[in-house]
Amino acid sequence: MAEETTRTKLVASITDMEKDFAQWYTDVVIKAELADYSSARGCIIYRPYGMAIWELIQNEFNARFKQTGHENVYMPLLIPESLLQKEKDHVKGFAPEVAWVTHGGMEKLTERFCIRPTSETLFCDHYANIIQSYRDLPKLYNQWCSVVRWEKTTRPFLRGLEFMWQEGHTAHATAEEAQAETLGILDIYADVCAEMLAVPVIKGQKTESDKFAGAEATYCIESLMHDGQSLQSGTTHNFGDGFARAFGIQYTDRNNKLRYAHQTSWGVSTRLIGAVIMVHGDNSGLVLPPRVAPVQVVVIPVAQHKAGVLELAREVTDALSKKFRVKLDDSDKNPGWKFSEYEMKGVPVRLEIGPRDIENGVVQLARRDTGAKTAAPIGGASASVENLLEDIQRGMYAKALAHLEAHTYSALDMAEIGRVINETPGFIKAMWCGGAECEDTVKKRTGVTSRCIPFEQEALSGKCVCCGKKAEKLVYWGRAY
Amino acid sequence: MAEETTRTKLVASITDMEKDFAQWYTDVVIKAELADYSSARGCIIYRPYGMAIWELIQNEFNARFKQTGHENVYMPLLIPESLLQKEKDHVKGFAPEVAWVTHGGMEKLTERFCIRPTSETLFCDHYANIIQSYRDLPKLYNQWCSVVRWEKTTRPFLRGLEFMWQEGHTAHATAEEAQAETLGILDIYADVCAEMLAVPVIKGQKTESDKFAGAEATYCIESLMHDGQSLQSGTTHNFGDGFARAFGIQYTDRNNKLRYAHQTSWGVSTRLIGAVIMVHGDNSGLVLPPRVAPVQVVVIPVAQHKAGVLELAREVTDALSKKFRVKLDDSDKNPGWKFSEYEMKGVPVRLEIGPRDIENGVVQLARRDTGAKTAAPIGGASASVENLLEDIQRGMYAKALAHLEAHTYSALDMAEIGRVINETPGFIKAMWCGGAECEDTVKKRTGVTSRCIPFEQEALSGKCVCCGKKAEKLVYWGRAY
Repeated sequence: MAEETTRTKLVASITDMEKDFAQWYTDVVIKAELADYSSARGCIIYRPYGMAIWELIQNEFNARFKQTGHENVYMPLLIPESLLQKEKDHVKGFAPEVAWVTHGGMEKLTERFCIRPTSETLFCDHYANIIQSYRDLPKLYNQWCSVVRWEKTTRPFLRGLEFMWQEGHTAHATAEEAQAETLGILDIYADVCAEMLAVPVIKGQKTESDKFAGAEATYCIESLMHDGQSLQSGTTHNFGDGFARAFGIQYTDRNNKLRYAHQTSWGVSTRLIGAVIMVHGDNSGLVLPPRVAPVQVVVIPVAQHKAGVLELAREVTDALSKKFRVKLDDSDKNPGWKFSEYEMKGVPVRLEIGPRDIENGVVQLARRDTGAKTAAPIGGASASVENLLEDIQRGMYAKALAHLEAHTYSALDMAEIGRVINETPGFIKAMWCGGAECEDTVKKRTGVTSRCIPFEQEALSGKCVCCGKKAEKLVYWGRAY
Repeated sequence: MAEETTRTKLVASITDMEKDFAQWYTDVVIKAELADYSSARGCIIYRPYGMAIWELIQNEFNARFKQTGHENVYMPLLIPESLLQKEKDHVKGFAPEVAWVTHGGMEKLTERFCIRPTSETLFCDHYANIIQSYRDLPKLYNQWCSVVRWEKTTRPFLRGLEFMWQEGHTAHATAEEAQAETLGILDIYADVCAEMLAVPVIKGQKTESDKFAGAEATYCIESLMHDGQSLQSGTTHNFGDGFARAFGIQYTDRNNKLRYAHQTSWGVSTRLIGAVIMVHGDNSGLVLPPRVAPVQVVVIPVAQHKAGVLELAREVTDALSKKFRVKLDDSDKNPGWKFSEYEMKGVPVRLEIGPRDIENGVVQLARRDTGAKTAAPIGGASASVENLLEDIQRGMYAKALAHLEAHTYSALDMAEIGRVINETPGFIKAMWCGGAECEDTVKKRTGVTSRCIPFEQEALSGKCVCCGKKAEKLVYWGRAY
């Protein structure tokens, strides 16, 4: 009974998601020990558990980037003001939100530096130095780092003054190659979301008004959170030769003609952790898909003071550790507290071993996602766990996809957009004439923004949902983080 | 003949190390494409080859840190000025060399932030929040990041305005545990240098005047470069409870008594890449120990237009790739250019395949470290390469150790120190009374600084080399980077 009380208390310490989704989110971040606040406003501390999730995501992307010929590099943290100003649209987009270094030690600097908000200017500067011939192309570079943007309101993982990400920057001989890269990386982003994070996404293009500063075209993946708000989860940009012209990135082609390079950039950030939390989490805390879980199986001995329990728990842990990420909790906390703790942390499978189980030659396996509990023979624990983890991974994706589909609506007029977003928030498909004014009007009158022009187009009607003139595109609209 | 000319030219493009060691070093860094200069003064660009070396070093340390129970975290890049000032010695040591952020976007900040020069203050701030009970200890945290120190003169990898490193920060219940951690990590540092980088080091303690700002004791590993100058290659610090008192990091022990935690911090940086360059390099460029080589074997087809050559080169590459990091260079550059290129890049083994080799059923294996060339049967290439790589790794360490031993001298008076450091630079062992004045006098009169008080003490004499009074310790002195 005491165990149950403790357990209830810990779970009760997070807000119900139905009551206050934002507070639920913050509670999970803090109580699952993913992150903590720091004394630097808007900058979070990535605690070991959150960092381990990020490292798993990094490893997955690194493997896929490497497979497709990309190499990691590291560019400076600081950008001289004069360098930031070389591409006009780019500086206009970023200058209002950068942190400025004005003093080095006791001295005032003659030129200010900004802390990178993104590194296009540094990569371009380098590319201008190292690209001379068609033999030097393509350059397929990526870097893992943190960037700083002086945001007013911040939320852990979703919007930070400082956040961690990867930024890819590539240079190509032709416009076709650059476009293929831009779309190829978008596929990698979508695949990792679906296959590793169990997060289904919509692939599409951003509207003109929502493009990256300096880009010709921006593509994105958009995912839908449990509360029906959408999260831009990754973007890829085709720069054409705009940056190359601003920075003088030229190469001689096979016919000895001087040409400008074509460039792309692309990034995903720790926002992906935010997506995992908000797509899969529940009122007991985090729910992690097995492939991104730092601990896939937690082994909890029950009545561990009884003969044979701890020994067997250790044996099972050792055996499972050969294939899975396993943690044995043999601390002196009571099992009820432990159950609750690892539920909060979203560990996919809990394996219990108690005296009665030993008698019966089984272990108990509990799924975090559904709560279902089954017994498995001790000797077959590894095979059972393997099947279970695959089942959970698949099941979580299917559930998230069903949620996305159930919360994707169509609207033929503005009233319908307003009604849907207030009553049953989600993605709203509606036709659009392509005009920036209509995009703006939809936003002002209903509160939704264009999320993307999806690659998979449909014709709901021939008319723009706003002005009634000829529709050019189907657009996904929604409220976004 | 044409091939030979190209090859000679490329090698000739680096300065002889005997003529100008500093210029040789810079040439290798740039020509081996480890790093490049950037538009931000003192900040280098880590190019793919240099970054790959750093990633191998990171992986090795991560594995060893994890084995010993350490966890990765990530702290903010920015430190509020008030936080930096909490520990008096610490702020005095670092304030003169930090970069100050004074503006966020268009606004002047009410409190300045510095870019972390090191993160003790952030870790302490966090520890004060998360440590309450003895159950919360120890905390064994590490982070990989870059830090900024506003240095006047900089050199790639050795001293940078921004540099990459790992910084470990731990909190313990007792002074004994903290001291064991401080020395245990020093062993890990020394082992990785010896076993992976083939760099032998001297382990010892820094003198009082050379301690880290805020530490009770600083320990270090010192290595000896080819030019006889020493390089501080890693440091570990025992803070006692000084930081804990400044930041209020207290825990209740098993008897419910409130106690201060004992802390350590420790770091190695990309200086280790500098050590690898300067310990092993030669007048043909970089020489990499196999364990830290991004490419361990380069396969070069000779007369690759001839029937069967490219096919076999690909087969051999595929076979070797199962066990080693292998690159096939089948570009249309001539073999002489390729030989020279991969010598410059320090690839441990070059594997050549030509028409004559195919006839004889062999491949040619050339060692980068000694230049020795042997033939190996095609079928046994993998076993031959494995032996060769082990031989090279061992041989490079033995050579570096012999160099260190041959360049370690003893001096009984000041004149001897002066003579040695000018004629045959290296480590100079000499006795010291323990006084800061004598340490200073030795430095002023001979140009050497105390590198460390080695753990392995000897008694060369009973007298201080400077004042002639009773000697307390044997000290390693030298000129340092």
